[in-house]
Amino acid sequence: MSTRIGILGYGNLGRGVESAVALNPDQELVGVFTRRDPSTLKINTAGVPVYNVEELEKMTDQIDVLIICGGSATDLPEMTPKYAALYNVIDSFDTHARIPEHFANVDAAAKKGGKLGLISCGWDPGMFSVNRLYSHCILPEGKDYTFWGKGVSQGHSDAIRRIDGVKDARQYTIPVPAAQDAVRSGSNPELTTRQKHTRECFVVAEEGADLARIEKEIVEMPNYFSDYDTTVHFISAEELARDHSGLPHGGSVIYTGTTGAEKANKHVIEYSLKLDSNPEFTGSVLAAYARAAHRLNSEGVSGAKTSFDIAPAYLSPLSGEELRAHFL
Amino acid sequence: MSTRIGILGYGNLGRGVESAVALNPDQELVGVFTRRDPSTLKINTAGVPVYNVEELEKMTDQIDVLIICGGSATDLPEMTPKYAALYNVIDSFDTHARIPEHFANVDAAAKKGGKLGLISCGWDPGMFSVNRLYSHCILPEGKDYTFWGKGVSQGHSDAIRRIDGVKDARQYTIPVPAAQDAVRSGSNPELTTRQKHTRECFVVAEEGADLARIEKEIVEMPNYFSDYDTTVHFISAEELARDHSGLPHGGSVIYTGTTGAEKANKHVIEYSLKLDSNPEFTGSVLAAYARAAHRLNSEGVSGAKTSFDIAPAYLSPLSGEELRAHFL
Repeated sequence: MSTRIGILGYGNLGRGVESAVALNPDQELVGVFTRRDPSTLKINTAGVPVYNVEELEKMTDQIDVLIICGGSATDLPEMTPKYAALYNVIDSFDTHARIPEHFANVDAAAKKGGKLGLISCGWDPGMFSVNRLYSHCILPEGKDYTFWGKGVSQGHSDAIRRIDGVKDARQYTIPVPAAQDAVRSGSNPELTTRQKHTRECFVVAEEGADLARIEKEIVEMPNYFSDYDTTVHFISAEELARDHSGLPHGGSVIYTGTTGAEKANKHVIEYSLKLDSNPEFTGSVLAAYARAAHRLNSEGVSGAKTSFDIAPAYLSPLSGEELRAHFL
Repeated sequence: MSTRIGILGYGNLGRGVESAVALNPDQELVGVFTRRDPSTLKINTAGVPVYNVEELEKMTDQIDVLIICGGSATDLPEMTPKYAALYNVIDSFDTHARIPEHFANVDAAAKKGGKLGLISCGWDPGMFSVNRLYSHCILPEGKDYTFWGKGVSQGHSDAIRRIDGVKDARQYTIPVPAAQDAVRSGSNPELTTRQKHTRECFVVAEEGADLARIEKEIVEMPNYFSDYDTTVHFISAEELARDHSGLPHGGSVIYTGTTGAEKANKHVIEYSLKLDSNPEFTGSVLAAYARAAHRLNSEGVSGAKTSFDIAPAYLSPLSGEELRAHFL
């Protein structure tokens, strides 16, 4: 069974999905959909058209799964339910507190249209969530810890860019090795936000800007930086372009649990990612789950789902027999 | 929904399952079943009866899932299909070449009885398999490597014990750090058996035995040791009991893949386990999947399955809403 894919939104994540779909022989990219003027957008895949988003109203018979690559703040809460009524859809919605509301909205729309809407897919939420769940189920007496990085946080980079006098910025989230080691030892430490991660910022300032003031505004910024030990480096635009143009990321979910009489035996489960390109990896997860969404919907399953609801075999183009032979 | 569990076979794994079931508030151990005289068996759980295996013919209305803790060589090929006709069953069958045949036998029996038979569950096959599958689906351009240890291999320990002049033995499988580092670097090395693992043996010899001959027989033993660099230590029975009585194990599945134009971006996914007790951890995996087997069968699903076919949510006693709130 092959899957015809549409991509809605062509930022970093949209390009990551495009690159992933090209590696899946059973997937075909039908088109990229944008709110911009389609003629202004040049995409990487030769021969694939760019459409205005309005065209989605008329292409339901040409697309099996629409992968929605928008922001969680305003795009996805509106877009995913809207298109779940017309298409099988996937998004990477990551505003944790609003997941119940988003799930309910997508569920209602998808069920009405007989479609499947898979939300909060990617690596966190996504593969990290799946690993937290597996570990808790296997070892009910235990505790999970998630560390992110070393990697670029786009939200934190954007927050720095909004400061007066800043031309550009890149922020790295870095896990504290001592905290990771304490967790891996099975000692179940209580860790504060500050003890788990540090933040390192590379900032291009406007000429003549007050660097001390910018640094102070960064390190004291509530929610983003004030709870962390933050280092600020001022560099040139050339240095930023040369040394910090990638979007690497990663992290690890470390779970420690006990079994046996008097909880005598300790076990450590660790799932870790080291990614050269956050959007290309996230796009790869979305493409694999697009296959699952299409297959499940073909079997008559509709409504909102998350990665928790998808059996691993559905992510693969191979038969059950092949999977057992190669991977079991 | 609570699950009534039977355990067939009371060796290390049976005791591991018993200890896991005790940690799951929604599971109840109904009985332990043995081919031995039940009166000779004392189990750890107070108040739970031990039955002769023959009783299983008459207890189908008292047990929701039977966890079969036998050996893959002769026990499971016979037992799992036999009891899959009467009960939802789970086993940890790990003879890779015979999985197609075992799966077919269990499938036929389970379908006839309207039951579910989950085979090859545990950590390898099991959680390691699931991780190999997820990684291949996400990054189709890539390669998986599995390392085992440091941990006790019971099969290799038994093989040493069969040598003339050996009273007891413990064999550790140890991954080679340089090989792991080469894999993590993303260089996709081709590794021989010898390059991936070493083997370390602690042997208690009979008094006056020819130690040089025993050592030679170990390191040259085909299939078990001849393809590895093997170290042999002769120690006393007291030292073996004092320093080597545990059954620790673990290992890691490392997957490296690429994305993007010219495969420019590398990604490393690693799933690793560090287990104080191999049988208690394996038993914990079986107990979690017992919950899934029971729930799926209650929904009308029958036949043979593996961990590939089970959505993660089925392993948990929590509702979808609770899972999304806590783990997504």
